[in-house]
Amino acid sequence: MAGKKLWGGRFTGSTSELTERFTVSVDFDKRLYAEDIRGSLAHARMLARQGVIEEQDAVSIENGLAGIKREIENGAFKWNESMEDVHMNVEARLTELIGEAGKRLHTGRSRNDQVATDFRLHVAVRLADWMGRARELAAVLAERAGEHLDTLLPGYTHLQPAQPVRLSHHLLAYAQMFKRDCERIGDCLKRVKVSPLGAAALAGTTYPLDPDATARDMGFGARFANSMDAVSDRDFAAEAVFCASLVMVHLSRLSEELIIWANPGFGFVRLPDAFATGSSIMPQKKNPDVSELTRGKTARVFGDLTALLTLMKGLPLAYNRDMQEDKEPFFDADETVTLALTVNAAMMREMVFDAEAMRKAMAKGFINATELADYLVGKGAAFRAAHEVSGRAVALAQDRGVGLEDLSLDDLQGLSELIEQDVFEALDYQNAADRRETPGGTGKNAVRAQLADFKAWLEQAG
Amino acid sequence: MAGKKLWGGRFTGSTSELTERFTVSVDFDKRLYAEDIRGSLAHARMLARQGVIEEQDAVSIENGLAGIKREIENGAFKWNESMEDVHMNVEARLTELIGEAGKRLHTGRSRNDQVATDFRLHVAVRLADWMGRARELAAVLAERAGEHLDTLLPGYTHLQPAQPVRLSHHLLAYAQMFKRDCERIGDCLKRVKVSPLGAAALAGTTYPLDPDATARDMGFGARFANSMDAVSDRDFAAEAVFCASLVMVHLSRLSEELIIWANPGFGFVRLPDAFATGSSIMPQKKNPDVSELTRGKTARVFGDLTALLTLMKGLPLAYNRDMQEDKEPFFDADETVTLALTVNAAMMREMVFDAEAMRKAMAKGFINATELADYLVGKGAAFRAAHEVSGRAVALAQDRGVGLEDLSLDDLQGLSELIEQDVFEALDYQNAADRRETPGGTGKNAVRAQLADFKAWLEQAG
Amino acid sequence: MAGKKLWGGRFTGSTSELTERFTVSVDFDKRLYAEDIRGSLAHARMLARQGVIEEQDAVSIENGLAGIKREIENGAFKWNESMEDVHMNVEARLTELIGEAGKRLHTGRSRNDQVATDFRLHVAVRLADWMGRARELAAVLAERAGEHLDTLLPGYTHLQPAQPVRLSHHLLAYAQMFKRDCERIGDCLKRVKVSPLGAAALAGTTYPLDPDATARDMGFGARFANSMDAVSDRDFAAEAVFCASLVMVHLSRLSEELIIWANPGFGFVRLPDAFATGSSIMPQKKNPDVSELTRGKTARVFGDLTALLTLMKGLPLAYNRDMQEDKEPFFDADETVTLALTVNAAMMREMVFDAEAMRKAMAKGFINATELADYLVGKGAAFRAAHEVSGRAVALAQDRGVGLEDLSLDDLQGLSELIEQDVFEALDYQNAADRRETPGGTGKNAVRAQLADFKAWLEQAG
Amino acid sequence: MAGKKLWGGRFTGSTSELTERFTVSVDFDKRLYAEDIRGSLAHARMLARQGVIEEQDAVSIENGLAGIKREIENGAFKWNESMEDVHMNVEARLTELIGEAGKRLHTGRSRNDQVATDFRLHVAVRLADWMGRARELAAVLAERAGEHLDTLLPGYTHLQPAQPVRLSHHLLAYAQMFKRDCERIGDCLKRVKVSPLGAAALAGTTYPLDPDATARDMGFGARFANSMDAVSDRDFAAEAVFCASLVMVHLSRLSEELIIWANPGFGFVRLPDAFATGSSIMPQKKNPDVSELTRGKTARVFGDLTALLTLMKGLPLAYNRDMQEDKEPFFDADETVTLALTVNAAMMREMVFDAEAMRKAMAKGFINATELADYLVGKGAAFRAAHEVSGRAVALAQDRGVGLEDLSLDDLQGLSELIEQDVFEALDYQNAADRRETPGGTGKNAVRAQLADFKAWLEQAG
Repeated sequence: MAGKKLWGGRFTGSTSELTERFTVSVDFDKRLYAEDIRGSLAHARMLARQGVIEEQDAVSIENGLAGIKREIENGAFKWNESMEDVHMNVEARLTELIGEAGKRLHTGRSRNDQVATDFRLHVAVRLADWMGRARELAAVLAERAGEHLDTLLPGYTHLQPAQPVRLSHHLLAYAQMFKRDCERIGDCLKRVKVSPLGAAALAGTTYPLDPDATARDMGFGARFANSMDAVSDRDFAAEAVFCASLVMVHLSRLSEELIIWANPGFGFVRLPDAFATGSSIMPQKKNPDVSELTRGKTARVFGDLTALLTLMKGLPLAYNRDMQEDKEPFFDADETVTLALTVNAAMMREMVFDAEAMRKAMAKGFINATELADYLVGKGAAFRAAHEVSGRAVALAQDRGVGLEDLSLDDLQGLSELIEQDVFEALDYQNAADRRETPGGTGKNAVRAQLADFKAWLEQAG
Repeated sequence: MAGKKLWGGRFTGSTSELTERFTVSVDFDKRLYAEDIRGSLAHARMLARQGVIEEQDAVSIENGLAGIKREIENGAFKWNESMEDVHMNVEARLTELIGEAGKRLHTGRSRNDQVATDFRLHVAVRLADWMGRARELAAVLAERAGEHLDTLLPGYTHLQPAQPVRLSHHLLAYAQMFKRDCERIGDCLKRVKVSPLGAAALAGTTYPLDPDATARDMGFGARFANSMDAVSDRDFAAEAVFCASLVMVHLSRLSEELIIWANPGFGFVRLPDAFATGSSIMPQKKNPDVSELTRGKTARVFGDLTALLTLMKGLPLAYNRDMQEDKEPFFDADETVTLALTVNAAMMREMVFDAEAMRKAMAKGFINATELADYLVGKGAAFRAAHEVSGRAVALAQDRGVGLEDLSLDDLQGLSELIEQDVFEALDYQNAADRRETPGGTGKNAVRAQLADFKAWLEQAG
Repeated sequence: MAGKKLWGGRFTGSTSELTERFTVSVDFDKRLYAEDIRGSLAHARMLARQGVIEEQDAVSIENGLAGIKREIENGAFKWNESMEDVHMNVEARLTELIGEAGKRLHTGRSRNDQVATDFRLHVAVRLADWMGRARELAAVLAERAGEHLDTLLPGYTHLQPAQPVRLSHHLLAYAQMFKRDCERIGDCLKRVKVSPLGAAALAGTTYPLDPDATARDMGFGARFANSMDAVSDRDFAAEAVFCASLVMVHLSRLSEELIIWANPGFGFVRLPDAFATGSSIMPQKKNPDVSELTRGKTARVFGDLTALLTLMKGLPLAYNRDMQEDKEPFFDADETVTLALTVNAAMMREMVFDAEAMRKAMAKGFINATELADYLVGKGAAFRAAHEVSGRAVALAQDRGVGLEDLSLDDLQGLSELIEQDVFEALDYQNAADRRETPGGTGKNAVRAQLADFKAWLEQAG
Repeated sequence: MAGKKLWGGRFTGSTSELTERFTVSVDFDKRLYAEDIRGSLAHARMLARQGVIEEQDAVSIENGLAGIKREIENGAFKWNESMEDVHMNVEARLTELIGEAGKRLHTGRSRNDQVATDFRLHVAVRLADWMGRARELAAVLAERAGEHLDTLLPGYTHLQPAQPVRLSHHLLAYAQMFKRDCERIGDCLKRVKVSPLGAAALAGTTYPLDPDATARDMGFGARFANSMDAVSDRDFAAEAVFCASLVMVHLSRLSEELIIWANPGFGFVRLPDAFATGSSIMPQKKNPDVSELTRGKTARVFGDLTALLTLMKGLPLAYNRDMQEDKEPFFDADETVTLALTVNAAMMREMVFDAEAMRKAMAKGFINATELADYLVGKGAAFRAAHEVSGRAVALAQDRGVGLEDLSLDDLQGLSELIEQDVFEALDYQNAADRRETPGGTGKNAVRAQLADFKAWLEQAG
């Protein structure tokens, strides 16, 4: 049965239990308790400084809230569903603990600006955490790149072998994505850290509040410019979940590769036992479950983004109850991206790469066919003719079941008289990779330079 | 720390705790316990009939599973996260209870076909429940329509007053949507109720199973045609969530109208207290929270659908671990649509309509302007000229702040000599509505016929 | 420059050119011309039968519309953007051609029911076409399955080799998906084929129309039950695009497999030249562009579905101009799914399968490890012990770089004394597949039966 | 019929016409012609500076490309579908015009880095344009706010009257949203303006290119750090379309309000004729089509975002043909957001506000009920008691069909003895608004300050 509601005066019937079940949010918004308390502390201190409440009241409030925080964290706090949300639960308990002063805390504040404040504080904490985890994963990738500076594998386009690339270069491609994520999240944070406290229900308040002071106290970069916008803006949540979506896109791409690489037809990686599962029936199995689930969980974060955007479309000013639905998509995306970044960093740290399998795949993929054509161009052939000779060499090697570099000089000379002994140098995979030395390319020096730049960023961002 | 896994043989390191947290599903898939047991019962009975296990074992299994079901339902069952999922939890407990026979239950079955079976059974149960609730809401709307057969309100297009319509007709428009939902869900159910049990890991099994028999035992309409498709198809879940999405579209449209209607500028409805909330600050407030949350929750169901489709895109055959992510979107959509249908039916049953406010809105909207034009055409005017006269009458009435029907005959005759005393009959809202008597129209007889048809459907569908 | 609008009477300013550019739809909705004319013919004939217009007028209208259709189809028709949409363009031209009778065509009709009618007619035509193309692709797959009844390949779960399956079985798994698509589209069609003609603007009409007759004339299965629902329902479009989304899911899964199979690490397929592209730089390349684009285009159809659902969320009754945005997502999904089905059917018809590469992949994947465990169980071993022996055999073969079947009897007996000469029969891939003879399994007889059932469906559906 | 392809060497069959229709992109990517030429100019100049091609060749290329640009812009250019894309069309024409030198342009470049370069250049141009248009709309809103500094209207929460707010404040809430959009787009631009030119196919190139120089030449802020990332990153497109999505969210909210405000039950706005449409049937109609379409078109931009994210999920490195599907969603979002911003700015410039209707709505909404409660608290009442008295006053006024301020002093004193003559000052709407003077509130000075800040931003951003 529903308790007495604060707004009950004008109502004769009581809230139906169904309505209560449908509208309650404390089961998920209690996750905001720390931020709710943090915001209330800032508000109380400001009220006292502005002379709206007594200094004594502010001290009681501060002590009461500290006690509530302890209760919540040691499990002693009794959450009450009929109190609707985290704000009412905390406020009711505060009044229980400290009496009238507890009621004064809400002076000049509405749940509309309070919930926006709590949520922004929470999103800001989580985004900073994401940045740390994305950077950590990038650091792991860079470290593994450093170990595999000279390991080569087929670079694919269209999942067809294209040109040899360094494994370090390949891993750094992902590291660059996560670096970009950090920058994007950093930009988003600027817009998250704008305090709505002081906007009250929608129009500001008649009390002489100092919203700049509460903003500073809570570590926000600025206060709201417009009270109606302050209570009805949820752009920051959508932008945060968009950032999470791109993190997941990057993780899903890495996952797809690992899943393919773990198949025996590739065999480029051996999954660490701690990150794979087997089968109770099939003794030969070692399944890349972590990568599959990472790929799969990408979908739910996209779903969260869809939900948040759809939610806000066409809502009139200012607060609408629809907006209570802003939190669960963010929480879901947060849990997913947090754990996915963490488990993938741990897995990549222990991933075993098989350079020999990569080498075999290069041979099978005739990945040096471009080199042969370039070699012929270097010897004076027209590009089109060189391309054709190379194509015929591929056909010959395929017939024999060998790589281009395994053909004899005779065989090759049978295809073009321009070919000489130095062709084998040209066909060498390592040479092929090293030749691509322009900035950002897969040549050894280029990758070394890239790695150095990346480590500099890591240190500065750390 | 992780327990000993069934597939641990080939593995030396133990599953990392992170991996476990990332891959565990028992926290959400335990919701399938009843269906897991139901499927196991069917499987055990079939195994015994086919002579794969002893009749005695089947009896033990049946008793053991019945006991487990009781344990779960009275809260005595100990869910174990290191057991990964609901299937392993139930099976491990069964073996604890009945020994070796418990292990034989899994003969000729894999978790791949088992989870697909459980999920389909569950979705089928839930869809049938949705149909019941959608029909219930439709019944409420039809009942309220019956009460308001003669109440008129402005029919809007572009949210601008267009023509008078019956409130009954308006409510029945929604009832028709929910009827269509029932039919769509019914079609979906045919595809849900196809048993995958017997497909085993992906290729079928070497035991002489009888998948048709288990399908029948579980109440499915058919068994799988292809074992690889059986374990990797999740179309049914996507289709179910799509059905839920359209239900929510319909509810969101109704909600939007109620939100607008509850604004004092309209005042067409007074929300029952049990389905509204007030404000702790603003004494005049009565907020349509149920409708707002219904509209808002529509977004999360769309997000669930996005997640499910995105999940399945580009997955190779057969089972992939990504597919573990199929359940939570369905569960979320299920909870949302179930509660939303229920609370809206309860609310509509008690919704108070204000016929007087509707009447005023018709006057203000010059909703009989079409009637005036038609009247003039009836008197011999060309349509374009009639349209223009009516437009000028609107302008005149607007200036005076009255409805068209409040203009004097003199005023009207000043606009056109064709106008006579009988114009007021034409301008009468009730007449205007009653004139639209073609099947499916808003005329009284037409609505009566619609209502009769609808009630016939309700009875047949009941 | 804007022309004179039909509704211009009450307006003094003219429509701004910007508004015109923003609101015009004729550039995309002219695609509905045939259905617009078809609907108008039905309406005109009904009006004459009901005595609303003269028989003579109906004949003029019929001739006029036939002429307009010819003009459009031979490119002589002048589309006029200031006429807004296809309906006004056709109607204006009709009046040009046949005079006053042309204006009478619109009697008792509004653009609201007209556009809904046209769109439903169009969607119905397209859905029937999709069904034909999906069936055609299914037929190709079944045919190719018939050719490869005995070709084996590794069946994968988690993209790890699991158990040998027939290529025919694998192809039929996809055929089953497209069969299911046909059934789902068929169900959708029932809801598409409900005529809204006669609902007029929103409330029905004062003319004695016969909406059942026009419904029959146009080949619809029923007429609308409620005029407000009739003009504001777009469920059918969303459901159609959902059906398209699942077709694309299936195509994307097939595409993913072909892309992986075409990689030299697998080599299961050789792409027909007509469906692959090369590289101007890399002579060895043969890229699976058709499959990649199919997979990529799946995303846009999901986007179309998102757009349609989001569009309809929260729209009040009845018609709103937002709904003009219903057509482009459908058109886009239609073009995509139509061409994707067609090009994939053509490609699968010519796809070259490499049974030898599949065989090698089975050896490399120790795909008969389950068989070894089962063999040991058959000889009396406990399953857990058998699983372990098999695991050790896998390790041994992996060390030697061979398949399990390439180990010597001595080697195997070193692992378990239960092993005898007949183990090699057990390890044989063909035997392994054939042992799975339960209905729907990959055994030869089971696949034969599946294929026969499938062909029966194809014939009946043809 | 298909022309000779550049990569045709190894292929015997010709590309099927179906494949061509499925894979062609020139019909949409020709929109990139200016950027394709701009990128080629930078590349040619750099090649000459680096000594890779002759200075003479660079001059020919420059002249040739200038000619092609003219041809395209005056409609003389012949687009050829069998040339697949804009790049090949331009290159082929260049070789036609200037011979061998044309072929040398592609040295050290691949279509993979070329298309990424073109697309980034294009997105950068469009984003800058969006910023200009969003700022323009914000400027219009600020200007209108300046005109209506003292106009009051009901501020709503839950679409229920809450507290009086200034129309200027309300309009500025939207202006703040579009300002935030400008900032977000500006951040996105940093990530768009990273040049991929020089990454070649995926691995960099063997020619001594200077990617920093080409980046500078094209106005990019930086060059790629990793060639594999450079050719396979489409984050920038997704982020751009996300920015567009939030712009549309804001426009959709404004639209929803205008649609509701234009309804006669509100009547807060009169739509300028140039931005409204009427009805050919209903003479009284004036429909807010622009706002409805803006709201509706929001859905398609969300669909574009869904498409882009879904597209990129799970794609392995590096280029995949799926990525050709990146452009159309961006183009569609671009057209939509560009026109929507423009038409809404034009419409808002001419929107007519009805202050009298707003005033009536305030009375009807008892929007000064909070003021009465606050007044009583000021006189010494406990807040809960004051809230109750105010609630009873609302009930009394509602019964009488008047506003609170229309009750007599006697009536009010009957409810509480604390009430005196000065209550009417408290109930005055203007006073109520002016009392909310904290920064960002709706008080006159607060709004003035907000407006001044906003104009400063506009000037700085201009």
